[in-house]
Amino acid sequence: MAASNLRFGAHATREVGQDFSNMISQLPAAERSGAKIGVFTDPNVAKLPVMEVVEESLVREGLNWVVWDKCAVEPTDKSWQAAIDFARSSNITHFLAVGGGSSMDTAKAANLFTNYPEADLYEFINAPIGRGRPIERKLSPLIAIPTTAGTGSETTGTAILDIPSKSFKTGIASRALKPTLGIVDLNNTATCPREVAIAAGLDVLFHSLESWTAVPFNERTPRPANPINRPAYQGSNPISDIFSKWALETTIKYLPRISKDAQGDTEARAQMLLAASTAGIGFGNAGVHIPHAFSYPISSLNKGRPKERQYHHPSYAPDVPLIPHGVAVSLTAPAVFNFTAPSSPQRHREAAAIFMGDRAGELARVRDEDLGRVLQEEIRRFLDILGVPRGLSEVGYKNEDIATLVEGCMPQRRVLDLAPILAKDDKAQEREQLTHIVEGSMSW
Amino acid sequence: MAASNLRFGAHATREVGQDFSNMISQLPAAERSGAKIGVFTDPNVAKLPVMEVVEESLVREGLNWVVWDKCAVEPTDKSWQAAIDFARSSNITHFLAVGGGSSMDTAKAANLFTNYPEADLYEFINAPIGRGRPIERKLSPLIAIPTTAGTGSETTGTAILDIPSKSFKTGIASRALKPTLGIVDLNNTATCPREVAIAAGLDVLFHSLESWTAVPFNERTPRPANPINRPAYQGSNPISDIFSKWALETTIKYLPRISKDAQGDTEARAQMLLAASTAGIGFGNAGVHIPHAFSYPISSLNKGRPKERQYHHPSYAPDVPLIPHGVAVSLTAPAVFNFTAPSSPQRHREAAAIFMGDRAGELARVRDEDLGRVLQEEIRRFLDILGVPRGLSEVGYKNEDIATLVEGCMPQRRVLDLAPILAKDDKAQEREQLTHIVEGSMSW
Repeated sequence: MAASNLRFGAHATREVGQDFSNMISQLPAAERSGAKIGVFTDPNVAKLPVMEVVEESLVREGLNWVVWDKCAVEPTDKSWQAAIDFARSSNITHFLAVGGGSSMDTAKAANLFTNYPEADLYEFINAPIGRGRPIERKLSPLIAIPTTAGTGSETTGTAILDIPSKSFKTGIASRALKPTLGIVDLNNTATCPREVAIAAGLDVLFHSLESWTAVPFNERTPRPANPINRPAYQGSNPISDIFSKWALETTIKYLPRISKDAQGDTEARAQMLLAASTAGIGFGNAGVHIPHAFSYPISSLNKGRPKERQYHHPSYAPDVPLIPHGVAVSLTAPAVFNFTAPSSPQRHREAAAIFMGDRAGELARVRDEDLGRVLQEEIRRFLDILGVPRGLSEVGYKNEDIATLVEGCMPQRRVLDLAPILAKDDKAQEREQLTHIVEGSMSW
Repeated sequence: MAASNLRFGAHATREVGQDFSNMISQLPAAERSGAKIGVFTDPNVAKLPVMEVVEESLVREGLNWVVWDKCAVEPTDKSWQAAIDFARSSNITHFLAVGGGSSMDTAKAANLFTNYPEADLYEFINAPIGRGRPIERKLSPLIAIPTTAGTGSETTGTAILDIPSKSFKTGIASRALKPTLGIVDLNNTATCPREVAIAAGLDVLFHSLESWTAVPFNERTPRPANPINRPAYQGSNPISDIFSKWALETTIKYLPRISKDAQGDTEARAQMLLAASTAGIGFGNAGVHIPHAFSYPISSLNKGRPKERQYHHPSYAPDVPLIPHGVAVSLTAPAVFNFTAPSSPQRHREAAAIFMGDRAGELARVRDEDLGRVLQEEIRRFLDILGVPRGLSEVGYKNEDIATLVEGCMPQRRVLDLAPILAKDDKAQEREQLTHIVEGSMSW
């Protein structure tokens, strides 16, 4: 169970300048004057009040800093490379990310490749897409300030990017990438639009539910000979369970309230922000599985389609084809949990009970073999409340895309290896299982 | 919310040699050959299988190590000083604690004072007893392997000692003391005697309940101008709440099973070990309050009494007068939570509901103003199940000791400042409140 430092509370963002001053004051005297903070954000967040607060705080401390405000929403190899080139040429010693997962992940990449100035982009990206080299150097300090309640990237060692030329979304996962500090400040989600808040909240929901149902840590094989060689994702375990279940309960309670009043319901916003960080600590140690594995080809293939077939999610930038990450995760989730239920009926029963709330008493009559179907229905019912597209067909996928989606999913070993039941050692059977899940996700 | 790294699972202790090898391999080449591990334990644990496993692991890695097996149960200034002298003269670069809170806290002190070779014992001890100097240097790595499910010291920056010459128990609290890694291995509580396991479990119970009811983090005043100056104990907060409440539920469920079968019920042992670490993360960030503040004079004054009036807890060493820490904490707890209930009726109601289990429905008829009394009764009922002495009179305190206990409690500002309702700015009123609590704790 690796650690996550968090500070939360209204106005905590104001203290970020002091945090950097405190770090810099501990450097050897000769290095202090060279300290330079690189602030990574996106063009939208750059215009929001949070960046004013950040800049005022850095100015007040008399710090040396530069801004990169070109982080892409759903970053690509190209947008990462631009941020890396900027960081390498700017002699940045301390990193600050302000934004959603996209900005935080870009800042993680910029930090990593600044500390490995000779490495190319594929050096650390998960195999088989990249070379999956372990990160052995200690990276520069990174503070992350989330502006959405979703990714939990402020607590994790994960950074995700899209590689459009390969129609593939993947990333880097290493404890070394974990931010030094996450500043979780309710003020920073006050302007988040409804559709963005819902999509982000769906990511929290499935971070929780996937990590809660991931292969248990003591069944993950082979056990590495040396603890340092363990993957970042350990499988579900008793401590990540505490986080994952709390985040699941909280998201199911508060995300529907966000859907009704995304900005005004401050209690719901506060709870979702905490749920995002909490789910991050849970899945950041336990891992996620099939819905996340499918989300990558689902989001990625949409961008490569002919223009007339591209899906554009409401209230995101209209000129960019986008199935938001949280929505992409949701589309296969009902079928996935129907598939995984036999692996741990008790856990799936508890999850169903949380979705059912007052109706949970009905579960007493449900046999273990029917739990998957019940949980599938409950997840669909919950997604309907939030207005999520009812299956892959509603975001433009057709039956002839099924094989492509499955082929895009199968190389996602970093997450698929945490999936229960999946026949990981028999590719033909695994393909069949995943195909069945996609077929069951076309519409409902 | 400061972080805690934990590894749990049966046999995790075997990997401790590799953990040190991994740390040492990251040192500059010139420092590697000088690396030396100091193993801190007590004379009882030194004879247990856990130390064999530790030593085999260190030998297998070819490490250079020395053992200090003279950590005292309920350590004193004298036993600390002996451990510090040993560490300073042995050129220890890496620390390992194997044992209960006593050994872990002693190892923390040895680490601290080895890194401040010029400091005397009172330099860092909490004011007003010590000079309360902040720890600014980075200390040496410390791995903690708990052998009791109690203190949670493997997750905290707290180290407690007794100063018999002043009849005073206090400590040092700083994030800097926090172990680098805690190894939480079920095998290591397999031989823990029943009375020791119960006393340790009571510590977990009140770590949870005190941190759950501590002053909220956003009401703790004054807010320091710089985040680095915040105390280790922040007040209750939404993330420590997750830990504290989970540990409370788990302890109430499993500690009675420990009382029935302390060694054979491995499920209960596993859950209590997790609850101890989890409560540690909760109170290590939120803090504890009045029951812990009183526990120090309660334990300490007993040792200074004439021999015929000293209390000896069953199944601890018969020649040492001892009110075990967990028992000492329990003795005032029922009266304390009766006192604190008006500060947050909802939290005290939830706590009462957890104690009541199947009977929680009865709470619907309990008015807020009666909650304190109900919770007090529920705690007493729970302590009765465990066979805890029914009040201070059963461990030898008389009415004429009340003022002395109160005077011994009042300087415990590190924890009393986290107590709700207490009139911290009016010493006469505070004294009266604490006196009332002791009077209500003499017998039930």
